[in-house]
Amino acid sequence: MRISKLLGERFKERAFEIESQNLMTRGGYMKQVGNGIYSLFTPATRIQRKIERIIREEMDNIGGQEVLFPVVMPASLWEMSGRYNSIGSELCRFKDRSGADMVLGMTHEEAAVHLAMNVAGTYTKYPFMIYQIQTKFRDEPRARGGLIRVREFTMKDAYSFHTSQEDLEQYYEQCHKAYQRIFARVGLPEVISVLSDSGMMGGKVSHEFMLLTDIGEDTIVMCSDCGFKSNIEAAECIVENIPDDELLPLTKVETFEYTTIEEISGFLKVPMNKTCKAVVYQRNDDDSYIIVFIRGDVEINEVKLRNHVKGQVHPAQNVEMAGIVAGTIGPVGLKANCTVLFDRSLKGGTNFVCGANEEGYHYTGFNIERDYGTPEYIDLGKAIEGGICPKCKNKSITVSNGIEVGNIFQLGTKYTESMGMTYDSPEGDRVNPIMGCYGIGVGRLIASICEAKHDEYGPIWPITVAPWQVHICALRSDTEEVKAAAEKLYAELQNIGIEVLLDDRQVSAGFMFSDADLLGVPIRVIISPKTLQRGVFELTTRDKSIKEDIEANSAVEHIDNLIRKLVADINGVADSIK
Amino acid sequence: MRISKLLGERFKERAFEIESQNLMTRGGYMKQVGNGIYSLFTPATRIQRKIERIIREEMDNIGGQEVLFPVVMPASLWEMSGRYNSIGSELCRFKDRSGADMVLGMTHEEAAVHLAMNVAGTYTKYPFMIYQIQTKFRDEPRARGGLIRVREFTMKDAYSFHTSQEDLEQYYEQCHKAYQRIFARVGLPEVISVLSDSGMMGGKVSHEFMLLTDIGEDTIVMCSDCGFKSNIEAAECIVENIPDDELLPLTKVETFEYTTIEEISGFLKVPMNKTCKAVVYQRNDDDSYIIVFIRGDVEINEVKLRNHVKGQVHPAQNVEMAGIVAGTIGPVGLKANCTVLFDRSLKGGTNFVCGANEEGYHYTGFNIERDYGTPEYIDLGKAIEGGICPKCKNKSITVSNGIEVGNIFQLGTKYTESMGMTYDSPEGDRVNPIMGCYGIGVGRLIASICEAKHDEYGPIWPITVAPWQVHICALRSDTEEVKAAAEKLYAELQNIGIEVLLDDRQVSAGFMFSDADLLGVPIRVIISPKTLQRGVFELTTRDKSIKEDIEANSAVEHIDNLIRKLVADINGVADSIK
Repeated sequence: MRISKLLGERFKERAFEIESQNLMTRGGYMKQVGNGIYSLFTPATRIQRKIERIIREEMDNIGGQEVLFPVVMPASLWEMSGRYNSIGSELCRFKDRSGADMVLGMTHEEAAVHLAMNVAGTYTKYPFMIYQIQTKFRDEPRARGGLIRVREFTMKDAYSFHTSQEDLEQYYEQCHKAYQRIFARVGLPEVISVLSDSGMMGGKVSHEFMLLTDIGEDTIVMCSDCGFKSNIEAAECIVENIPDDELLPLTKVETFEYTTIEEISGFLKVPMNKTCKAVVYQRNDDDSYIIVFIRGDVEINEVKLRNHVKGQVHPAQNVEMAGIVAGTIGPVGLKANCTVLFDRSLKGGTNFVCGANEEGYHYTGFNIERDYGTPEYIDLGKAIEGGICPKCKNKSITVSNGIEVGNIFQLGTKYTESMGMTYDSPEGDRVNPIMGCYGIGVGRLIASICEAKHDEYGPIWPITVAPWQVHICALRSDTEEVKAAAEKLYAELQNIGIEVLLDDRQVSAGFMFSDADLLGVPIRVIISPKTLQRGVFELTTRDKSIKEDIEANSAVEHIDNLIRKLVADINGVADSIK
Repeated sequence: MRISKLLGERFKERAFEIESQNLMTRGGYMKQVGNGIYSLFTPATRIQRKIERIIREEMDNIGGQEVLFPVVMPASLWEMSGRYNSIGSELCRFKDRSGADMVLGMTHEEAAVHLAMNVAGTYTKYPFMIYQIQTKFRDEPRARGGLIRVREFTMKDAYSFHTSQEDLEQYYEQCHKAYQRIFARVGLPEVISVLSDSGMMGGKVSHEFMLLTDIGEDTIVMCSDCGFKSNIEAAECIVENIPDDELLPLTKVETFEYTTIEEISGFLKVPMNKTCKAVVYQRNDDDSYIIVFIRGDVEINEVKLRNHVKGQVHPAQNVEMAGIVAGTIGPVGLKANCTVLFDRSLKGGTNFVCGANEEGYHYTGFNIERDYGTPEYIDLGKAIEGGICPKCKNKSITVSNGIEVGNIFQLGTKYTESMGMTYDSPEGDRVNPIMGCYGIGVGRLIASICEAKHDEYGPIWPITVAPWQVHICALRSDTEEVKAAAEKLYAELQNIGIEVLLDDRQVSAGFMFSDADLLGVPIRVIISPKTLQRGVFELTTRDKSIKEDIEANSAVEHIDNLIRKLVADINGVADSIK
């Protein structure tokens, strides 16, 4: 490819806060078509195709059968599983020309069961796994970060079918390893897997694959001692409460206009972990109120709350209607008509500050058992930095942000049961197969690689996914010698199957190099009148680890060997995964 | 791949009339999800990926840059080009969660211009071509024939941008040749290109690539003398009228209940080409009536009629309301309030039979100039078998059916103008680039290959697109020797990168072979206790051209060579294209 013909423009001005979005916009990788909807220019498309190929190889390696499900599906298919009604407006619904209800696929469990049912009627067919690489549309309310969170995206989704939980678990492990290999092969061996909440997918055990980065929207809880890892949504929250020697008397104090727990903590000079804050929710189904009391430094984990109350909830509005005095809610003397829950973070604590249910007043010296009674303590909090590890029990929890680049679920029989898919067991019974499902968002993975591998000048694409392997900068290509040498190298490299981008423009070296930085090709070869005088080309790598002169005569062989070495380095990491 | 694990069932019962649909259903290639919407099993998906690879290589060869446009687009993009309103209900429209109007991409001219505009602002960037391989949805009213005409399909669509008509034409020729190479490489060198009507795409010159087959929905006009080829929609209709020596008098005759031109022709014993029939249409916009007089043996070409009246038309309803006497409409004494057109097929004819505008009566001896006056003759007819070639003027027109497997258009500036895309010319003017666009429907191509390459037992996939290259039938795999030999060959072939399907089931030879026929893999290797006694495997090709014993010891090399030869044979045809 000649850069003079490459569509897309590169520019210097910072475009966005999130670095992958900034660099991929400035580098001419993508263009926004609508909210959360992008067109990809050639560099990004080439990266995507390479990632797809790696994914395909690894899926085939674990016995996957590539199939293709439709983007547009009849609603009836989703009614069979019950999700047509249970999923909110992120599922895009519309009517076709005949008035039939249709949906856009945001995930394909229903389609997978539809394809497999009637053709997997005996146990001998099992286990099997089918996967596709296809466009999906999820009507995200909060598209952000370029390709990090979009509405339309390319996804690899896989579905496995089993006759026993043991068999699913064994395959799940295989797939877990295949995922580690995929992330290693695309240059992100640092991606970790964490326990996760299964959410709307149903099922019990699930893992998310996370790239740790400050811009990640997910929060990950890890133990620095034992290696425990979990999405915060699924992590137990265990905190320590060291009781005071003496229980202080319950005392009402004036707190004026202060209402938030941060303000009260500051005003009364009490640490946050000695406060008992109230958070009010409403159930989506009947708008009834739920008050959760929780230690001031711990946040509510809404996933746990939803699971506990077995229904959707939202932060409460118009709490006055429930007789609640906002800003001063406390357990003592609470007269509101609502469900009251106590988070486990309060257990064992003494002398808390809490609201007095009276505008402008709080209590100090609140001791739950003495002043309120013994509540049932429920785990509804988000794990905190310095908290106690649920696995090794050390006070070694750290909290980080991450981008979810993949996930795997043990689904169970949720879909095969609701859609009536069965097989005949050896004993002649009709049994619902047990499913697993496994996803990777390709576009988000591209952005994540960029997020993890870049410097201030542009992306540093790993050679296995780079849009091109070699970038030739022909400086002063108006001189015959440079032009001839560059064209010769360009042709010879391509002849042996190497992907080359040739900068054949007559622009300054600085302009050329800043474009090359934004395109992030791993190997750069600079040909100029100066280098030719010395009979050499200058070779640098985008990650700055190599900068050397190479003989013009043996350049092709030298570059070919370097590519093989860079690829082998990355694949070696993948092959070392146990 | 082991057939015991391959998802999909094969069966014997005839499933559909159209052979590709029948065989691809019976062979476990696809499953209908909704009207015109299919999921693809692994054999079809593998064929699709191979076709995509061939297309990608050929598009890259002519300088194409692969990009990716979204499936879901904001309506505003289509409003810019005017097509949001001009296209009917085949364009799927819906609202997203925020109430914004969206469409599903059925073609991507708007998206291509959107991507290219602002990044191709100077003439030096031109020409360039961008293409994608992506899912499309077109809400077809008449989905039929399995993958032949569907609503959702994978398509390669390409868009080229030029600074002059000459440059477009030159590139158009290159792309034409690339298309011929693609069809040759997928095993369909017999695909022909024909002139076509550009329809809703705008632009002037366009070609369709057609596979001639009786089940095709398109009609193709060809000259057996000079090689002229055209879609009937775009073909001039020239017929010969040999005038009688004597003009007969205009005579009203009773024709009783006969009304159709066939009935009248039979009743009056006059050949169809001596009749003048009337066909009545209405304009869609104002319901006004149009009567076309045309020779009895020629059909109306609605595309020409639409182009002539510059608007959509439909066959008339309730013609009585316009004062028309249905079944006996003729030029003489016609009192209806409508537009009257004369097709060129009537020009030069004498002594026609035509309606008398009176129930139960027709005229004989109708001579247009004498009895009506001299009308403007317009070409509104479909070319007919035995008609006159518009190019060489011989009476050598033949009419065939075909499936459109690809098309190329010279679009002109329709989209760049309406969407405001410009570049700066060398003279400093702002100019709209000239576009071409180029499509291939991948799924329809799969079905077309099956339609062209099959026998009564199943598809005969060309090796370049076959789901696997080799199909091993292990007969009596319960015997140790067969099992060991089959597994060894399976492993060894795969080790050198050959794609193998292994039938490892313990089923009868007949069952195994009929499955193999339906899977259509080009090379079949049969291993049985009998062949092993002779130290050989039996090799047959799916097209029955080869049936031989091969030494077990040198089987891998033998098969590898055969694959190379079969691939070379196909590619040789592509390479011979001038």
